[in-house]
Amino acid sequence: MKHLLSAADLDKDQVLELLATAEQMHELQDREVKKLPTLRGRTLVNLFFEDSTRTRSSFELAGKWLSADVVNVSAKGSSVSKGESLRDTAQTVAAMGIDGLVIRHPASGAPHQVAQWVDASVVNAGDGTHEHPTQALLDAYTMRRQIGDLAGAHVVIVGDLTHSRVVRSNLILLQTLGARVTLVAPPTLMPSGVQSWSDTDGFATTYDFDEVLPTADVVMMLRVQKERMSGGFFPTPREYTVGYGLTRDRLQRMAKDAVICHPGPMNRGLEITADAADSARSLILGQVSSGVAVRMSVLYHLLGGANV
Amino acid sequence: MKHLLSAADLDKDQVLELLATAEQMHELQDREVKKLPTLRGRTLVNLFFEDSTRTRSSFELAGKWLSADVVNVSAKGSSVSKGESLRDTAQTVAAMGIDGLVIRHPASGAPHQVAQWVDASVVNAGDGTHEHPTQALLDAYTMRRQIGDLAGAHVVIVGDLTHSRVVRSNLILLQTLGARVTLVAPPTLMPSGVQSWSDTDGFATTYDFDEVLPTADVVMMLRVQKERMSGGFFPTPREYTVGYGLTRDRLQRMAKDAVICHPGPMNRGLEITADAADSARSLILGQVSSGVAVRMSVLYHLLGGANV
Amino acid sequence: MKHLLSAADLDKDQVLELLATAEQMHELQDREVKKLPTLRGRTLVNLFFEDSTRTRSSFELAGKWLSADVVNVSAKGSSVSKGESLRDTAQTVAAMGIDGLVIRHPASGAPHQVAQWVDASVVNAGDGTHEHPTQALLDAYTMRRQIGDLAGAHVVIVGDLTHSRVVRSNLILLQTLGARVTLVAPPTLMPSGVQSWSDTDGFATTYDFDEVLPTADVVMMLRVQKERMSGGFFPTPREYTVGYGLTRDRLQRMAKDAVICHPGPMNRGLEITADAADSARSLILGQVSSGVAVRMSVLYHLLGGANV
Repeated sequence: MKHLLSAADLDKDQVLELLATAEQMHELQDREVKKLPTLRGRTLVNLFFEDSTRTRSSFELAGKWLSADVVNVSAKGSSVSKGESLRDTAQTVAAMGIDGLVIRHPASGAPHQVAQWVDASVVNAGDGTHEHPTQALLDAYTMRRQIGDLAGAHVVIVGDLTHSRVVRSNLILLQTLGARVTLVAPPTLMPSGVQSWSDTDGFATTYDFDEVLPTADVVMMLRVQKERMSGGFFPTPREYTVGYGLTRDRLQRMAKDAVICHPGPMNRGLEITADAADSARSLILGQVSSGVAVRMSVLYHLLGGANV
Repeated sequence: MKHLLSAADLDKDQVLELLATAEQMHELQDREVKKLPTLRGRTLVNLFFEDSTRTRSSFELAGKWLSADVVNVSAKGSSVSKGESLRDTAQTVAAMGIDGLVIRHPASGAPHQVAQWVDASVVNAGDGTHEHPTQALLDAYTMRRQIGDLAGAHVVIVGDLTHSRVVRSNLILLQTLGARVTLVAPPTLMPSGVQSWSDTDGFATTYDFDEVLPTADVVMMLRVQKERMSGGFFPTPREYTVGYGLTRDRLQRMAKDAVICHPGPMNRGLEITADAADSARSLILGQVSSGVAVRMSVLYHLLGGANV
Repeated sequence: MKHLLSAADLDKDQVLELLATAEQMHELQDREVKKLPTLRGRTLVNLFFEDSTRTRSSFELAGKWLSADVVNVSAKGSSVSKGESLRDTAQTVAAMGIDGLVIRHPASGAPHQVAQWVDASVVNAGDGTHEHPTQALLDAYTMRRQIGDLAGAHVVIVGDLTHSRVVRSNLILLQTLGARVTLVAPPTLMPSGVQSWSDTDGFATTYDFDEVLPTADVVMMLRVQKERMSGGFFPTPREYTVGYGLTRDRLQRMAKDAVICHPGPMNRGLEITADAADSARSLILGQVSSGVAVRMSVLYHLLGGANV
């Protein structure tokens, strides 16, 4: 495996191997010395064309705990604002002699293009409204630790599907692992071409959250961007919460062992209430913790270690 | 000691132990290789909700010289601007599996709250107009190196007491070490409740700098925020310098061995003139140098080392 | 050698030694573990008063690959915006106990001043429109790898000479190495005092790019700042490309083994077309790669290693 650009790059065996390595990495976090020498002498650059504190920090920690050198390049307001092309920026960074390039970019497909231009391994850390494969991996990792094998599990993903980069990667990866996925959104936030995202039987869409809620093993709430909530075309925040929020009432209608995920940052009171976010069902902080372990696993498999 | 949130967390023995360790750390700076393996495998996050280049750099160096991994998170314009709560931001960063969290925040009390929400050790690196305990420790360290035991010493702190986060931590810590403290400010910059800050005999306030100047062993000048100097309610810059600036004239009226401190950055020509800032009495650059050693000591005591 | 402030600091022997060390450093980039222990325990601060992602990243990598601790300080919007003087900022950073200070500053001469105020070694990473000596070193390094000894070689530097910090350092260094240099610019971008930059026979200026193009061994294109291209005093972008762009047509009129340099970031289509930038003659990505090696060499010679 040279790059990780899409959840579709991974077949089931590869996913399981990445998750198994992540488990080993995760155990490090209980040790006093959370560091492996594996990537000593390798260099990772976080090339972020959009702000993303949590994703950037997670990759930075993952790299450092593997003893790699990590350099952060915020491409906002740097050469890019001087009109340099994505190609020139990426090739320039890569020409410094780095091993891995973690890219966050507002344009869908940008990391795929960069992967064709540079020798370094490229990790897609979120491209536009397209994909965010390490998020899907960490979600799967977190769910599996809690509810076991995902084959046959029902995962309900709820919210602003149109603008989410998380949903597509999750849909692909969850289906690779045999889960059934239902996407829930108000009509105005349901992507028009969503039916074409997958043609398997294990994939459905609905506008009715309450109908599918009791059958969910996992309820994954997506972040709503408040500025999109206008009284006209889109629902108001209040309408949104009534129809699609994970409220105390809905929390009580979840199945006995069902769990809650959210990629963060949360809008408490809008798509999720404090009852749900902080309940015993919530895996939300576990997702963050898993994130570092999963990214260590990805970097380990992509950049190889001296002893691999 | 788990957290360092306030100068009041420390009794005299703890202060002296922190300062003694700082002395050992300080000696490292004369070596070619300024690095100890003590915190290898530990991770420190600088979570700054306000810019502060010098404090952030000082903690970053302190962590690196102890071989910790250090990650900087500027919470301006990141998830926070997306409306995430302080609690969610802090818990998210902590969930990544870090050991220490250094927090600068515009709201007084923020680090205290964070300490209740996370497992990591929390260091208050300045909260609103409230406290900045490592600044008080480095001030005490610097004074002691120059004038010895602070018991009975007279420290005069001059300036914008209302908006300073330095003064309260210094008042507490200096009294813990037995110093007498006089706070000097123009009436408009003297906090209304200042008398309640301490009820000991060794604490006084005055509007008259010149009266107390000759009896000071240490004169600590605080930074004035120029935008507060309007001709109306507040003194003008010129009036401020005349009444409360450490000028050449006042420099000459200081006691024989008295010394000068300033937490920086200085407004030369406003609260302090170049004669004073660059005089042989000035400990100002020494404060910066001590700052790294004191923060190494704090991190060492909070995060422990494998061999502690 | 204590500081590197100007290309004029270096005689021919020093240049050759720096370039020879750079060659050894460059070989590291082909290894799996690109890291030397040479500067372990030394600390480098990148103090940047202007954004410059590529220069900052290059120095950061150079420091890290030599095992130094590297701290980035962006002096935009920090203490500096609080009105602190350059002297106080530089002395404060240096007082933390660092070994090297890499400075980028909008004012010509700023690093020279800083070098008089601090104990640390100072590297000029670009001061105003004045100098950028490590850029000149990496340019010379890259040219020599391709065309061999530069004595007698003809280097033609084309573009916005008035606002370039690259041209002056290159002129000095290339003449130190015995090259002939011709500076080419439209009249409005030719500095008025350019004749005084050097009084050797090996230095000429012209407005006519096409006249000197066929005799060039190296064509170095400079970045044009588009905002300076107005229809009035300055040429329009179109006029600029016609008169001074390295176009496909000019590419074909270059001498048989002549090569192309550009310090980046490029304005493709303005001062250089894709045909030229991506041709086999182009050393542009090689310059970036060499940059890290050259900076490692400079840091090695300035900061010394435990075993030097």
